[in-house]
Amino acid sequence: MRGFKRVPLPEGTVERLIGIACLSPSVGLSEPWRFVLVDDATRRAGIRGCFGVCNKEALEMQDPDRAALYARLKLAGLDDAPVQISVFADRTTAQGAGLGRRTMPETLDYSVAIAIHTLWLAARAEGLGVGWVSILDPARMTQILDVPSEWVFIGHLCVGYPLKEDDTPALEREGWEHRHAPDGVVIRR
Amino acid sequence: MRGFKRVPLPEGTVERLIGIACLSPSVGLSEPWRFVLVDDATRRAGIRGCFGVCNKEALEMQDPDRAALYARLKLAGLDDAPVQISVFADRTTAQGAGLGRRTMPETLDYSVAIAIHTLWLAARAEGLGVGWVSILDPARMTQILDVPSEWVFIGHLCVGYPLKEDDTPALEREGWEHRHAPDGVVIRR
Repeated sequence: MRGFKRVPLPEGTVERLIGIACLSPSVGLSEPWRFVLVDDATRRAGIRGCFGVCNKEALEMQDPDRAALYARLKLAGLDDAPVQISVFADRTTAQGAGLGRRTMPETLDYSVAIAIHTLWLAARAEGLGVGWVSILDPARMTQILDVPSEWVFIGHLCVGYPLKEDDTPALEREGWEHRHAPDGVVIRR
Repeated sequence: MRGFKRVPLPEGTVERLIGIACLSPSVGLSEPWRFVLVDDATRRAGIRGCFGVCNKEALEMQDPDRAALYARLKLAGLDDAPVQISVFADRTTAQGAGLGRRTMPETLDYSVAIAIHTLWLAARAEGLGVGWVSILDPARMTQILDVPSEWVFIGHLCVGYPLKEDDTPALEREGWEHRHAPDGVVIRR
């Protein structure tokens, strides 16, 4: 979702969505998610700038036959979404006492990705849209938001009322990529 | 979920759940999920052995005051679950033409974690339970399952009918860890 109405959300909406996200499962019940509500205009401008730089670099690396299409794609709703939430994983959390993550510490990050997905589904259920922006530099996000350097940046979310509803993924609608049948991704052992 | 009835799933169930998982969002519509249905007894025994080794090492690293409790926890349903699915992320996929993942290739792994969460929710909606086993060695899983070495191991799933229903997370029930209020994980910038 990248097209948002410039309409604020009803009071308490963001807190409710985050509360639901916090009911997600997590490795060892570590609940490693950290939600940063970004309202400050200067920080928002910094994130917008970071996206601009990263997206320009991505455009320059496109195959020539794809570059024009890439340049036409709208890849973030940073200018319009009323709510922006940056989400991090606290890799240093003591909660859960390390259970389930000794060989796979990255499961902390996966737990946070799943919490974002929960927030996303809860938002959709009340008619809101969520856009996950990943065309960003994680180290720069940590600086802009002044959060602990041990936190792993997972994603930056735009949340708001969608400009329009559509069941087809935007990248499919625009001719960038299409969904494939599940048969090709299942093997038996 | 770690306690499963030794009851097979109705024909077509696994394929339906994977089909729903494949409707998940993914970075750049890359659909990087790869599902490995593990039925072979030797491979299952290999995974059971891998879990045993990793869990023993984890037990040895527990604080003395936690070790007895850790040893009592049931941390996997590998002996009883009728269905086992290993899930990987194909970091080399050309699908999506790299969109959205140049600065954050790990978003491919997050997309797969979210697909697992979708499968999990779909399973719960029809009365099934899912256990995500992470006390495993990713490199060993790649060997045991003979899958491409470029695939990133995300998690091993046990799927089946739960021995009992319970809304309280098992680790909370057992006194290992408890849920915390969302207030502590939200900051404003």
